[in-house]
Amino acid sequence: MGIVLKDGLIVTAVDIYKADIRIEGEKIVAIGSQLKKTGDEVISIDGYYILPGGIDTHTHFDLETGTGIRTADDFASGTKAAIAGGTTTILDYATQNKGETLQQGLNNWNQKAKNKSYCDVGFHMAITDWNDKVPVQMKDMIQKGVSSFKIYMAYKGIMQMDDEDIFKALIRSKELGALITFHCENGDVIEALIQESKSKKYTSPYYHPLVRPALVEKEAVTRLLYLAELANAPVYIVHLSSKEALENVIEAKKRGVEVHVETCPHYLLLEDSLYDLEGFESAKYVMSPPLRKQEDIEALWNGINNHFIDTISTDHCSFNFRGHKDVGINDFSQIPNGIPGVEHRISLLYTYGVQLGKISLNKLVELTSTNAAKLFGVYPQKGTIAVGSDADIVVWDFNQTSIIEQKTQIQNVDYTPYEGMQVKAQPVYVFLRGNKVLSQDGGILEQPQGRFVKRKSLKGE
Amino acid sequence: MGIVLKDGLIVTAVDIYKADIRIEGEKIVAIGSQLKKTGDEVISIDGYYILPGGIDTHTHFDLETGTGIRTADDFASGTKAAIAGGTTTILDYATQNKGETLQQGLNNWNQKAKNKSYCDVGFHMAITDWNDKVPVQMKDMIQKGVSSFKIYMAYKGIMQMDDEDIFKALIRSKELGALITFHCENGDVIEALIQESKSKKYTSPYYHPLVRPALVEKEAVTRLLYLAELANAPVYIVHLSSKEALENVIEAKKRGVEVHVETCPHYLLLEDSLYDLEGFESAKYVMSPPLRKQEDIEALWNGINNHFIDTISTDHCSFNFRGHKDVGINDFSQIPNGIPGVEHRISLLYTYGVQLGKISLNKLVELTSTNAAKLFGVYPQKGTIAVGSDADIVVWDFNQTSIIEQKTQIQNVDYTPYEGMQVKAQPVYVFLRGNKVLSQDGGILEQPQGRFVKRKSLKGE
Amino acid sequence: MGIVLKDGLIVTAVDIYKADIRIEGEKIVAIGSQLKKTGDEVISIDGYYILPGGIDTHTHFDLETGTGIRTADDFASGTKAAIAGGTTTILDYATQNKGETLQQGLNNWNQKAKNKSYCDVGFHMAITDWNDKVPVQMKDMIQKGVSSFKIYMAYKGIMQMDDEDIFKALIRSKELGALITFHCENGDVIEALIQESKSKKYTSPYYHPLVRPALVEKEAVTRLLYLAELANAPVYIVHLSSKEALENVIEAKKRGVEVHVETCPHYLLLEDSLYDLEGFESAKYVMSPPLRKQEDIEALWNGINNHFIDTISTDHCSFNFRGHKDVGINDFSQIPNGIPGVEHRISLLYTYGVQLGKISLNKLVELTSTNAAKLFGVYPQKGTIAVGSDADIVVWDFNQTSIIEQKTQIQNVDYTPYEGMQVKAQPVYVFLRGNKVLSQDGGILEQPQGRFVKRKSLKGE
Amino acid sequence: MGIVLKDGLIVTAVDIYKADIRIEGEKIVAIGSQLKKTGDEVISIDGYYILPGGIDTHTHFDLETGTGIRTADDFASGTKAAIAGGTTTILDYATQNKGETLQQGLNNWNQKAKNKSYCDVGFHMAITDWNDKVPVQMKDMIQKGVSSFKIYMAYKGIMQMDDEDIFKALIRSKELGALITFHCENGDVIEALIQESKSKKYTSPYYHPLVRPALVEKEAVTRLLYLAELANAPVYIVHLSSKEALENVIEAKKRGVEVHVETCPHYLLLEDSLYDLEGFESAKYVMSPPLRKQEDIEALWNGINNHFIDTISTDHCSFNFRGHKDVGINDFSQIPNGIPGVEHRISLLYTYGVQLGKISLNKLVELTSTNAAKLFGVYPQKGTIAVGSDADIVVWDFNQTSIIEQKTQIQNVDYTPYEGMQVKAQPVYVFLRGNKVLSQDGGILEQPQGRFVKRKSLKGE
Repeated sequence: MGIVLKDGLIVTAVDIYKADIRIEGEKIVAIGSQLKKTGDEVISIDGYYILPGGIDTHTHFDLETGTGIRTADDFASGTKAAIAGGTTTILDYATQNKGETLQQGLNNWNQKAKNKSYCDVGFHMAITDWNDKVPVQMKDMIQKGVSSFKIYMAYKGIMQMDDEDIFKALIRSKELGALITFHCENGDVIEALIQESKSKKYTSPYYHPLVRPALVEKEAVTRLLYLAELANAPVYIVHLSSKEALENVIEAKKRGVEVHVETCPHYLLLEDSLYDLEGFESAKYVMSPPLRKQEDIEALWNGINNHFIDTISTDHCSFNFRGHKDVGINDFSQIPNGIPGVEHRISLLYTYGVQLGKISLNKLVELTSTNAAKLFGVYPQKGTIAVGSDADIVVWDFNQTSIIEQKTQIQNVDYTPYEGMQVKAQPVYVFLRGNKVLSQDGGILEQPQGRFVKRKSLKGE
Repeated sequence: MGIVLKDGLIVTAVDIYKADIRIEGEKIVAIGSQLKKTGDEVISIDGYYILPGGIDTHTHFDLETGTGIRTADDFASGTKAAIAGGTTTILDYATQNKGETLQQGLNNWNQKAKNKSYCDVGFHMAITDWNDKVPVQMKDMIQKGVSSFKIYMAYKGIMQMDDEDIFKALIRSKELGALITFHCENGDVIEALIQESKSKKYTSPYYHPLVRPALVEKEAVTRLLYLAELANAPVYIVHLSSKEALENVIEAKKRGVEVHVETCPHYLLLEDSLYDLEGFESAKYVMSPPLRKQEDIEALWNGINNHFIDTISTDHCSFNFRGHKDVGINDFSQIPNGIPGVEHRISLLYTYGVQLGKISLNKLVELTSTNAAKLFGVYPQKGTIAVGSDADIVVWDFNQTSIIEQKTQIQNVDYTPYEGMQVKAQPVYVFLRGNKVLSQDGGILEQPQGRFVKRKSLKGE
Repeated sequence: MGIVLKDGLIVTAVDIYKADIRIEGEKIVAIGSQLKKTGDEVISIDGYYILPGGIDTHTHFDLETGTGIRTADDFASGTKAAIAGGTTTILDYATQNKGETLQQGLNNWNQKAKNKSYCDVGFHMAITDWNDKVPVQMKDMIQKGVSSFKIYMAYKGIMQMDDEDIFKALIRSKELGALITFHCENGDVIEALIQESKSKKYTSPYYHPLVRPALVEKEAVTRLLYLAELANAPVYIVHLSSKEALENVIEAKKRGVEVHVETCPHYLLLEDSLYDLEGFESAKYVMSPPLRKQEDIEALWNGINNHFIDTISTDHCSFNFRGHKDVGINDFSQIPNGIPGVEHRISLLYTYGVQLGKISLNKLVELTSTNAAKLFGVYPQKGTIAVGSDADIVVWDFNQTSIIEQKTQIQNVDYTPYEGMQVKAQPVYVFLRGNKVLSQDGGILEQPQGRFVKRKSLKGE
Repeated sequence: MGIVLKDGLIVTAVDIYKADIRIEGEKIVAIGSQLKKTGDEVISIDGYYILPGGIDTHTHFDLETGTGIRTADDFASGTKAAIAGGTTTILDYATQNKGETLQQGLNNWNQKAKNKSYCDVGFHMAITDWNDKVPVQMKDMIQKGVSSFKIYMAYKGIMQMDDEDIFKALIRSKELGALITFHCENGDVIEALIQESKSKKYTSPYYHPLVRPALVEKEAVTRLLYLAELANAPVYIVHLSSKEALENVIEAKKRGVEVHVETCPHYLLLEDSLYDLEGFESAKYVMSPPLRKQEDIEALWNGINNHFIDTISTDHCSFNFRGHKDVGINDFSQIPNGIPGVEHRISLLYTYGVQLGKISLNKLVELTSTNAAKLFGVYPQKGTIAVGSDADIVVWDFNQTSIIEQKTQIQNVDYTPYEGMQVKAQPVYVFLRGNKVLSQDGGILEQPQGRFVKRKSLKGE
C-alpha cells in the first residue's frame, strides 16, 4: 500500500513538470500518470508544487554559550519548526569542547537530539581543540556518518584555531575526503576592535557591526582560500555575508580552488540599518557576521545566480530578547550571538526570491536542498524528487499569503527578525520518509519521527 | 502501445538513479518500476545509462564560404552523424547574407534542411547586414521559432559588424527576449596581422594561430561584455577557447552581466602544437579561434566545474583536407576555417571528461543537453529525462571501447581531428521523440525523422 | 651679465631646498650661494618658491570644429594665458584633416602659431586619415621635432580611426620611437546613445554625460591597451576621467604594458552634478569625456599618488557660452566640446592639491612639468630646475589669495568653469629661456617670445 | 676651504646633467660652473658620474640567531663593505628581545655600532614582545631618532606576532607617524610545512623553498594590507620576492592603501634553480623568502618601472658557509637564514639593470637612495645631490669592469652569492658628509667616520 500524490507540479534543481508521484514505504517508487495501485491512498494536490524536503545545513539547537546561556530552541522545538517550514533534514553543529575527544562531542549532541527530533538530523563536528589525536578521531567520525567538520577563525581564545592547525586540518581533510566548514572572520582584529570600542564606551548594539567590518570577513576568507590552495583541499564557507568576501571567493575559483559557499536568508533580506534602532532593539540582530549593506545584498543575489553560492541555510541559533540577549545591555560584546530562522527559510526565499524574479524555482530547490545533499553526502537519498530517493516531500501552496509573527511561530523564541513580513508560501503536506508528518488541516504529527542521518564522505564512502 | 526501457541508470543534469522509463507516442509518460502496460514493447537495458538526447547548439551544415567552397557535410550526413553520436537536436546557423532579409536567410536554410534531417533541427539567425528593418524582422523570426541570433566580431568586410550596430542589436534583443550569440575575435587586428604575416611570406598553417592570438579573443570578449552591460542585455559567447578570455567573462559575471559561454571539445582536448605538423597537415586544425595551450585547457575544465561555462557544442563545419582545405596551400588565410565534430562530441567528453574524473556524468548532461535546451527555449520539451518531455533518449554503453577513425565515421568528410583516439562510450539505442532511430544492431533508421524545432524566447513566448 | 634669483625655495620633481639660482643667457648656470658675478641683476625672492615652468601637453588653440566654429582662444591669447598661469611651454594638437598629408597639417598649425606665441610651443600631430603614406610621413614629422601623434577612438565619421589602423599605427610608432596619444571613448556606442537620446527628445546638456558613460571610456582604454600589448608599443592616454578606466590601466601595468596617463584639473575638481544646472548653464561643462562622480575624483587623486597617472594638462579648448556653445541649445550633441583651463591649471592644483595635503609640491612639479618634458622629448632642456637647463622659471607666491573670475582672466573666453573659486598661488616672475616675460608689477611682456620646440623621439633622436 | 668636484655628470632621482659640485664642511654648497674659491681642492672627475651616497635600509650586522650563531659581519666589516660599494648610510634592525624594553634593544645595538662604523648608521626597532608599555616606548624611540619599526609575520614562536598585536601596532603607528616594516610570510603554514618535510626526511636545502612557497608570502602580504586598510596606517614590506605577492600589493594600492615595497638584488638576479646544486652548496642561498622563478623576476622589474616597488636594499645577513651554514647540514630548517650583499648592491643594479636597459640611472638613484631617505625621515639631509644636503657623494666609474669574488671582497664572509659575476661600476671616490672616505687609489680611510643618524617620523617631527 502506497500513497499517490496526484496532479502536482514537481520541481527539482533542474526540472519542473506535472506528474503524479507514488510513495511506497519510505521511498518514491514511481513518477508519471495512472500510478495508483490497489490499496493506495490518493491525495489530490492539483495547483500545488512538490519540492524535495528542505535541508538546513546550519543549525545550533540546544547550544550553551561560553557564558552559560542556552539557546531558546532545543532539538524538539527546533526540528518541529523545521518541519513547519518545509525542512525535513537539519545538520546541526556538534562541538568538541576544549579537552574533549570528538567522540565525546558527538555523544553530547546525540544525547541532545535523541528521541526528540521531528525531522531527520545529521551532525557536523566542530573542532576546537586540535591535537595529535584529532586526525585519527576524524576518520572515526566519518565512519560514524559525521563526514564534515567545522573550524572557527573567529572567537579568539574560545573557538578560534590558528593557521598552523587549520592547515594541518585541511591536509587531513583532503586525505579523508572530509569537508571542513569555516567560520571566516579574523578573530584577532575583532578582539582588538572590541577592546578599542569598549575603551571609548561604545557599548550599544550599534557598535556590533563596526567591530566586525566586511574587511575582517574578506581577510579570513582570503587567508583560508590560500591555505586551501596550498593544501589542495576543498572548503566550505558558512554564512558568507559580504560582497568583499565574495569577490575573493571568485578569485579563488578562477585559480581552481574548490570552494563552496553558504549564505543565509538574513544576509539576503535584511540590512545593517537595523543596528540603528531605538533602545536595545538592535540586539535582536546581533549575530556574526553582522548584517551588511544594499550592495552586499545585491552581490549575494548575483552570486547565487552565477553559482558562486551553493547553499542557503539559516545558522539558526535563537536567543530570547528578554532573558538572553539582554545580558549584553551594557556591553554589546556580551550579547549572545545568533538569530532564529529555520522555520521561515524557504517561504522567505520563495516570496522574496522566486516571486520577485530574482531566482527560479529550480534554483530555490538547488539552494535549499539539492546542493546541501550533494555536498554533505546524503545524495541521492535526500535532496531530490527521484525514483529511489527518500520520500522527503513538501507539497507547497504558493498562493497562500500569511504574515510572519512571533506569536504564531513554532520555534520557541520570543521574537523573530522577520516580524510582520508577508510570505506567500505555505506547506500543505510534509512527508518525512513517506510519513505524513504535517498536513495543513491536521498540523504536525505529535510523535517525533526524526532519525540520525549517516552521511558519506566526498570519496563516497 | 508504448515502450518500456527496463533497468537502465537514468542521468539528468542533477540526478542519477535506477528506474524504468515508459514512452508513449513522442513522450516520456512514466518513470519507476512495473510500468509495463498491455502491448508495450519492453527493452532490457540493464547495465546501460539513459541520457537525454544531446543538443549541439553550433553546427554549420551545407554552408558555402565566401569563396564558394561548400562544407563536406550537408544536413543529411551531418544530422545522421549527430544521431550516431547520441545527439538528437542540432541548432544550425542560418545566415542573412548581405542584401537579404532575415526571412530570406531562413528560407534558404529551411530549404537546405527540409526532408533530409535525421535529427531535429532548429536555427539561429546570423545577422550580417544590420539596417533599419532588421529590428522588426527579428521579432518576426522569434514568432517563427528562431529566437536566437548571431553576430560576428571577426571576418572583417564579410560578416563582421561594428560596435554601433552590435550595440543596437543588443538593445533590441533585450526588448524581445532574444539571445544573441557572438563570435568574439577582433577582426580588425586579425586583418592587420594577416597582412603583416603575408608581407613576410609567412604563409603556412603554422601562422594561423599567430594571427589570432588569445588577446584578440580576450579583447573582443571584453568589449562585448561592456556593451552588454551598457545595454543590460544577456549574451552568449560561442566557442570560447582561451584562459585570458575566460578571465574577463568571470569579471563580467562579478559585475552582474548575464553572460553564457560555450566551448568546444577541440578546445578541451587538442593543443596548439598541432600547428607544427609536417607539410600541410596542420591545415586540418585550421578553425577560428585556433587551438590553444595546456594552461588554456586547464582553465576551461576549471571553468566548466565552476559554472563559468554553460555548454559544449562542436562548431561542426567540415571541409575536406583534399579539395577544400588545400585551397590555402600557399596562403593559410585562404584555408576554409572549420573542423568536423558533431559525431564524437559526447563520446569524447565521456571518455576524456567523466572517465578521467574531470567532470561528473550529471555535468556531462548539463553541458551537452540541458543547458542548451534552457538557454535556447526548447526546455522542458527537450534537454532532460522527465515525465512529459520528448522521448529524445540515448541509451549508452559506457563499457564499449572503440577507436575514432575517418574510415568508419558517419560524417562525410575525409579526415577527423580525433583520428586514432579511443573512446569508451557507444549509443546502444537512440530514440527521437519516441522513435527508435538507432539501434546498435540495426544501425540508423534509413528514413529521416527530423523536424524543425520551434523555440521560445527568453520571455517564454 | 646674468640674473641671480636670491633666497628662493627651489622645487623639482624630487627635491626642495633653499638656494640661489644664476641665469646666463637662456640657461641656468649655477645653483648655490654667493653666485653673483659682476654686472648681474639680483632679484630677491625670499619667501617665494621656484618651480620649473609649467608644460601643458594638451591644448587646442585656434581650432575650427567640423561645423565651422573657431575656438575663443588663438595662439596669442592662449599662450598669454599660459604665461599668466606659470606655464612656459604648451604642446598643441596639430591635425591632419581628411585628405591632407601630415606635413599639410603641420604647415597649418605652424601658420596659426607663428609670431604670436607668448610661450614656447610644440605640436603633436593628430592623424585622422590613415593611408599607406602616413608611416613615411610619421618619420618625417619626428625629424621635424613632432615626435608624438594622436589618434581618436571617438567622434565616429569625423576623427575616429578603426582598430586595424590603430594597430598599424602602434606597430609603426614602436619602430620609430614615437609616442601616440589616444582619446579613449568608444565612438560607436556614443553614436548609438546619442541617436537614442535624440529619438526620445532628450536634448539638453543634462544628457551629455549619459551618452558618454564611464564604461564607454573604460571599454576604449581596455581595447587600446590590449592592442598596445599585442603591438608591444607604449601609449599615452589623454584626459582620463574615470575610476573604471583607471582600474584597467592598472591591470595593463601589471601585465607590463607601457602606458602613460594624463588627467585634467576639471576631472579632479568638478563633479557631474554640474550637468544638472538650470537652463542652458550646464553647456559650460560640455567636454569629452564628461565630468564624473566623487568616487572617480578620489580614484584619480589616489592614482596620482601611486604613479598611475603621469601628467595633468588642461585639454584647453575654449568656446564662448554665447555665440559658440549656444549653437547646441536645442541639441546637446551640437554643443562644441571643450572648456578653458590653461591659465589656472597650476594655481588650482596647488590650492586644491598641495594645500589640502593631497599631493606634495614635488608631485605638483612632476605632474605639471617634469613628466611632460620626459615623455615628450624636451628633457632636460625643459621640465626641471637644473644647471644646463633652459631658464624656464616661475617664481611663485603661495601666500597670495585671489579669486578666479572671467572678468579678470587673460584667456579670451566669456566664462570660466572655475568662476568664484579661490586660489592661493600667484606667479611673481616668469622667465622664459632667461627672459623675464612676466613680473607681478609689470604684467606680461608685450612682445611674444615663444619659439617652436623641437622634440626628440623616445629613442632620443 | 672646500672641495670642488669638476666636470662630473650629476644624477639624482629625476635629473642628469653635467656640472661641478662644491662641498664645504659636511654640505654641498653649490652646483654649477666656476665654483672654485680660494683654497679649494679641485678634483677632476670628467667622465665619471656623481650619485648620492647609497642608503641600504635593510642590514643585520652583528646579529646573533636564536641558536647562538653570530653573523659573519659586524658593524666594522659591514659598514666598510658598504662604503666600498658606494653606500654611505645603512639602517640596521635593532631588536627588542623577549622580555626587553625597546630602549634595551636600542642600547644593545648602539653598543654594537659604536666607534666602529665606517658609514652613517640608523636603526629600525624590531618589536617582538608586544605589551601595554610598548606604545609609550614607541613614542620614545621616535624622539630618539628611531622612527621606524619592524614586525615579523614569520618565525613562529620566536619573532612572529599575532594579528591582534599587529593591528594594535598599526593603530599606534598611525598616531605617531611611525612607519612599520613587515616581514611577510605566514609563519604558521611554514611551521606546518617544515614539520611535514622533516617527517618525510626531506632535509636538504632543496626543500627550503618548498616550505616557503610564494603563496605563503602572498597570504601574509594580503592579510597585512587588509589590516593596514582597517587601521588606515601606512606600511612598508621588506624583501618582497614574488609576483603573486606583488599582485596583491597593486590591488591594495588601487584601494588607496599606502604601501611601500622593498625588494633585494638577489630576488632580481638569482633564480630558485640555485636550490638544486650539488651537495650542500645550495645552503649559500638559504634566506627567507627564498629565491623565486623567472616570472617573478620579470614581475619585480616591471614593478620597479611602474613604481610598485620603492626601494632595493640587501637584507645583508651574512653567515659563513663553513662554520655557520653547515649547522643545518642534516636539517635545512636549522641553516641560519641570510646572505651577504651590502657591498655589491649598486654595482650589480647598475650592471644588470641600467646597462641592460631595464632601468634608468635616475631610477637606480631613486631605488638605492632617494626613496629610502624620504620614507625613513632623513631627507633632504641625505638621499640626493642638492645644495644644502649632506655631501654624501659617490663618484662612479661606469666603464671599469671587475669580477665579484669572495677573495677580494671587503665584507667578512667566506662566500658571495654573486661569485664570478662581472660588474661594470666602480666607486672612484666616496665622500661621507664631505669627508673623502674612499679613493680608488688610496682605499678606504682607516678611521671609522660613521655617525648615528637621527631620523624624523612621517609627521616630519
